[in-house]
Amino acid sequence: MSCAIGIDLGGTNLRVGILDRSGHILAKNMAPTGSDRSANGVITRIAEEVGQIRKTHHGQILAVGCGIPGIVAFDKGMVISSPHFPEWSGVPMRDEISRRIGMPVVLDNDANMYALGEHRFGAGRGCKNMVLLTLGTGIGGGLVLGGDIFHGDEGFAGEVGHIVVEPEGIRCNCGGRGCLEKYAASEGFANLAEKLSSKDKTSLLSRLGCDLSDLTPTLVAKLAEDHDEIALKLWAGFGRYLGVGIATLVNVLGIYTFIIGGGITASWDLFADPLRKEALGHTYKYHASHLIIKRAKLGDDAGIAGAGSRALEYFQL
Amino acid sequence: MSCAIGIDLGGTNLRVGILDRSGHILAKNMAPTGSDRSANGVITRIAEEVGQIRKTHHGQILAVGCGIPGIVAFDKGMVISSPHFPEWSGVPMRDEISRRIGMPVVLDNDANMYALGEHRFGAGRGCKNMVLLTLGTGIGGGLVLGGDIFHGDEGFAGEVGHIVVEPEGIRCNCGGRGCLEKYAASEGFANLAEKLSSKDKTSLLSRLGCDLSDLTPTLVAKLAEDHDEIALKLWAGFGRYLGVGIATLVNVLGIYTFIIGGGITASWDLFADPLRKEALGHTYKYHASHLIIKRAKLGDDAGIAGAGSRALEYFQL
Repeated sequence: MSCAIGIDLGGTNLRVGILDRSGHILAKNMAPTGSDRSANGVITRIAEEVGQIRKTHHGQILAVGCGIPGIVAFDKGMVISSPHFPEWSGVPMRDEISRRIGMPVVLDNDANMYALGEHRFGAGRGCKNMVLLTLGTGIGGGLVLGGDIFHGDEGFAGEVGHIVVEPEGIRCNCGGRGCLEKYAASEGFANLAEKLSSKDKTSLLSRLGCDLSDLTPTLVAKLAEDHDEIALKLWAGFGRYLGVGIATLVNVLGIYTFIIGGGITASWDLFADPLRKEALGHTYKYHASHLIIKRAKLGDDAGIAGAGSRALEYFQL
Repeated sequence: MSCAIGIDLGGTNLRVGILDRSGHILAKNMAPTGSDRSANGVITRIAEEVGQIRKTHHGQILAVGCGIPGIVAFDKGMVISSPHFPEWSGVPMRDEISRRIGMPVVLDNDANMYALGEHRFGAGRGCKNMVLLTLGTGIGGGLVLGGDIFHGDEGFAGEVGHIVVEPEGIRCNCGGRGCLEKYAASEGFANLAEKLSSKDKTSLLSRLGCDLSDLTPTLVAKLAEDHDEIALKLWAGFGRYLGVGIATLVNVLGIYTFIIGGGITASWDLFADPLRKEALGHTYKYHASHLIIKRAKLGDDAGIAGAGSRALEYFQL
C-alpha cells in the first residue's frame, strides 16, 4: 500500500511518522527539534529523522508532507514568517527538504496539517466543512471547506488566533491588537487576570505563589479544580473569548463544526460551557441546535497523520 | 444565446432583468415590492414582473435566479429568517416561485447574488477569491472562494455584518451584540455618535437639526464635505470599524480582495483611508502590499446580473 512520511515540526519537538492510505500510522518517532534554528540546521535534523524512520519500514515510501509553524506561502513552498524560525523567511524550504531527502515534499502550515488529520481520521471525519482550532501558546487554525484544506490566496487562511475580539486591545506579535489568542490561549491568562479586581488578582497570585507573568493554564486549572472561584472565573473568561471568536466564524463561514485541539483541552470541562453559551449568544438562534463544538481526537498524532495524508493526496498516491 | 432572468428582491424594490451568458443585461425593470409581505403576496408580484419582462424578449428564457434578503437555506430553497419578510420562515419559496412562473428557479441570499455579479462582470472579475460587503441599513456579504459562492453548511455563509467587533457591545437583531453592522452601516451612525463627548454630540445634532435616531450617512456626509470635524470623526470611526472587520476576514480567510458596494459607498472618500489603515493595523505587515479594498462597479445591476448568472451556471445553461 502507498505510504508517505508525515512531519510535524514544532518549536520544541520534531515528530515524524509513516502513514498508509487508510490512516494507519505504521511507525512514529519524536525527537528534539534542536537548537540550530537556521534553515540548514533544521533541514539537517529533518533529513536525519526521515532517514531513521525509513529504516524501520520495508515498503515503499513515496512522498513527504511537512507541517511548519508559521505563515506558509503554500504555492511557493516557502515560509513567509515563523516566530520559531525567524531565519527562514524567503528560503525555498520545500525544495531544499526535497533535495536533501530525495522525495517529493509538500509543505503546509502545521495547523492545516492538524486539521486535515482530524478531518480524515479524527473528530471531523465525514463532515463537509469544519474549522480546527489548536490552543497552545497562541491559537492555530485550519479551515476544511468542501472536504479540503482552504488556503486562501497564498496559503495563509486559518489564522483564527488573529480574529480581532478587542479592537483597542492588547498588542499582538502579528502587528495588530486585541487578537483572540491574546485572551484565549496560554498567554491569555495573564491578560485575563489583568481584568480582575485588584483584590481578586492579589488573592489569586498569592494562592498560586507566582507573578502575573508566570500564570499558566495548568496552574490556574489546578486551582479551579479545587473550586477556587477566581480561577474558575478566569477559565470562564477564556471560554467566553473563544466563544466570541467561534461566533464570528459561524457568522462568516456558515459552518457548524468546530474541533478544538491542543494541550489546553485537558481542561475542557473548565471552559466548554461558557464557550458554547457565548458562541450561541452571538449568533442567530437558529444555529443553536446545529452547532457542534468538540475536542480533537488524535492528540499529537494529528499533525503527522494530516501531513502524511496531505502528501498522499497532493501527489495522488 | 441562453438567457436567464435575475431577480433582486429588496424590502422596497423588486428588480428584474434578463441576462445573457456574456453578462449583458438585455432588459431590466424596477418596481415596488409592494405592501403585501406574505409569501403569496410577494410571489404574485414576482410572477407579474417576470411575466412583464418576458414579453420584451423574443429569445428563450430558460431559468430564474432569485436573490432574497435574509438567511436562505440554499439546498432546501427556503428562507429561514428574513427581517423584511418575517412570514416566510419555513415556506418552500423556491418551489412555489418555480410553480407559479413555470421555470426552474435557484434561490440564494441577495448579497451572494450581488457578490457573484461583481465577480463575474464587475470589480472582482478574474480573482480567485474575494469577499463582497454591501453597506446599507445593515451589512450584507458574500464569499467567492475558488471562483464560486461559498455557502457553508446550509447556505448561511457570508454574514459578515455579524462579525463580533465589540463582545460587550450594542444588542443586534441577530440575537448577539457588538456586531460589525451596529457600527459600520447606516444604523451605525447613531451608535458612533453615542461615543462622542456630550459637547461634540450636542454640537453635531444642533448643526444637523435632528435627533440622534434621525442621523443618516447622507446627513453626516453633507456636513463632513463642509469639513466639519465632528462629522469627519464619525466617518473615520465608521471606516475604522469596517477595517477591523476586514482585518478579521483577511486573517481567517487569507484573502486579499474586498469589494465594497451599497449606497454608502457614495461617501467612499470619507471612510476609505481610515478603513485601509485600520485593516492593515490589525494584520501581518506582509499583507500591506497585497490588500485590495475597492468599490463595487455594477451598482444596482449587480444583484440581477449575479442572480441571472447564478441561474445560468446552476442549471448549466
